[in-house]
Amino acid sequence: MTSNIKEFTKTYFLTADECNPEQEMPLTLVMSRVIDIATLHANAWGVGYAKLIEENQGWVLSRVTIEMDRYPQVNEEYSFTTWIEDYNRHFSQRNMEIRDKDGAVIGGVRTIWMVINYATRESVDISKLAYIRDNISARKCPITPQSRMRPVTEGRSVPYTFQYTDCDVNRHVNTVRYLELLMNQFPLEKWDKEQVHRLEIAFMHETRFGDTLTVHVDDSDPLDCKLSIDDATVSHCRARFVFTPRG
Amino acid sequence: MTSNIKEFTKTYFLTADECNPEQEMPLTLVMSRVIDIATLHANAWGVGYAKLIEENQGWVLSRVTIEMDRYPQVNEEYSFTTWIEDYNRHFSQRNMEIRDKDGAVIGGVRTIWMVINYATRESVDISKLAYIRDNISARKCPITPQSRMRPVTEGRSVPYTFQYTDCDVNRHVNTVRYLELLMNQFPLEKWDKEQVHRLEIAFMHETRFGDTLTVHVDDSDPLDCKLSIDDATVSHCRARFVFTPRG
Repeated sequence: MTSNIKEFTKTYFLTADECNPEQEMPLTLVMSRVIDIATLHANAWGVGYAKLIEENQGWVLSRVTIEMDRYPQVNEEYSFTTWIEDYNRHFSQRNMEIRDKDGAVIGGVRTIWMVINYATRESVDISKLAYIRDNISARKCPITPQSRMRPVTEGRSVPYTFQYTDCDVNRHVNTVRYLELLMNQFPLEKWDKEQVHRLEIAFMHETRFGDTLTVHVDDSDPLDCKLSIDDATVSHCRARFVFTPRG
Repeated sequence: MTSNIKEFTKTYFLTADECNPEQEMPLTLVMSRVIDIATLHANAWGVGYAKLIEENQGWVLSRVTIEMDRYPQVNEEYSFTTWIEDYNRHFSQRNMEIRDKDGAVIGGVRTIWMVINYATRESVDISKLAYIRDNISARKCPITPQSRMRPVTEGRSVPYTFQYTDCDVNRHVNTVRYLELLMNQFPLEKWDKEQVHRLEIAFMHETRFGDTLTVHVDDSDPLDCKLSIDDATVSHCRARFVFTPRG
C-alpha cells in the first residue's frame, strides 16, 4: 500500500452503489477519500488520530482544492497518492494525485490541515512535530493553490438548520455534509449537463447540531459559482465551484 | 472472506471518521453494511449487479429489520455473516448476523429483496434463479420478522423536498437517505440518551429528485416511534424505531 515513507498510495474500486446519478464517482466521495488517504498516511507514521487523541488533540481540515480532469466511472479502479509539500507553525500542506487504472493522472488535490486542542478548539503549534519536518516530499502538485475567497454578497440565499446526521464523532458538522449542502443548491439537471472541474472549499468556523445558518449562492457566472454558509457575523464555510460542460 | 458458498462473512473495522456523535457505529452505517455484504455475497455467486445489469435488471431492497444489542465502538472490529433463508417468485429473504471482535453475536438483520426491470420498474419473477434455490441455508436468524406497519395518522408532520445528493446511481432516493431523513426527526439530545434497539423499515414506492413528500412521526410512545414518508396518496417509506435508554 505504501510506496515509501514520504508518499502513500492506496488503490480503490468504484462500486455501482457509490456512484452518483451520472454513473460516476461523486465529488463527495472524492472528499471522503481525501480524508481517508490523509488519515492512513499519518497513521502509517504512528502520528495520526490515535496518537494525538491521547493529548486530546486532532487534525482538522482547513482548506481543500480538488481539480478533476475526469471522474472514475462505475467498476473502475483508481488510486490516490499523497505527500506533504510544506508546513509551518499553524498549517501542514498535504497534496494528492489521483490516477486511473492505467496510471494516468486524472486529478489533483491540495489540502491545508491544522491540529486543534479539542478542549479549547484552538490551534496547536505543529512546528515541534519532527515527523512532518522529516517527511517533506519534493514531488510537485499538478494543480494551482486555492484562490482567496471573499464573502458572497450577491445572488440568492436560503436558510438551513443542521440535523443529527450532519454531525460526526466530534459533535460538529462533518466536512462532507457542508459539501453536500452546497451541491444541493443546484438541481439534478445542472449536474446532468455539467461537472465540477475545480472545487475550492474552506472550513472557517465550526457548526453544531441545531444551528440555523444562511447559504449564499452567487451563480451570476453559472460556470464559476461562489458560495458561503454564514451566521450573522462570520462565514462557517466558503466555496467556489468551477463547472465544465459534459463532453 | 467467504466461509462457504451458502454463507458469506466479512470483517470490518470501525474508524473514528465513521462514528456518530455518541462515538459508536451509526445506524446508517449498519444499513450500508447490510447492502454491501448482500452485494458481495451475490457477486460471489456471479449473479449480482454485474450479471443482472446485462438484462437491465437489478436487486432492490424492499424491507429491512435490524436489531442491535450493542453497537460497535470506535476502533473495534466487527463482522457481518449473511445467508438466504427462503425465497418465492417475488421475494428473497436474506438474513445477517453481526458479531464483535470476540465472536459474540451483537445484532441480527432480516432483509427482503426483489429484482426489478429498470425500464418498467416492475418486479421480475425470481423463481427461475437456480442459484438461489441451491443456496438456501438452514441457519436460524436471531431476530423476529418485521411487523406489519400501518399508515401513520397521528402525531406531527413536516414536508421535505428531496435533493441532488439524496439520489444514487439509479436516479432514485437512496435507502440510506430515507433512513437519515427519518433519524433527523429526532434531536441530538434524544440520540445521546437513547439508541435504536430495533429498526423496521419498508421501502414501498420510489422517490425522485425534487419530489416534496410529508414525513409523519407518531412518537406518542417515545420508545416505540412510528414514521412514514408519504405523498398525497401512498407511502414511499414506513418505519418503526424501538429505542432503549443508554446504560
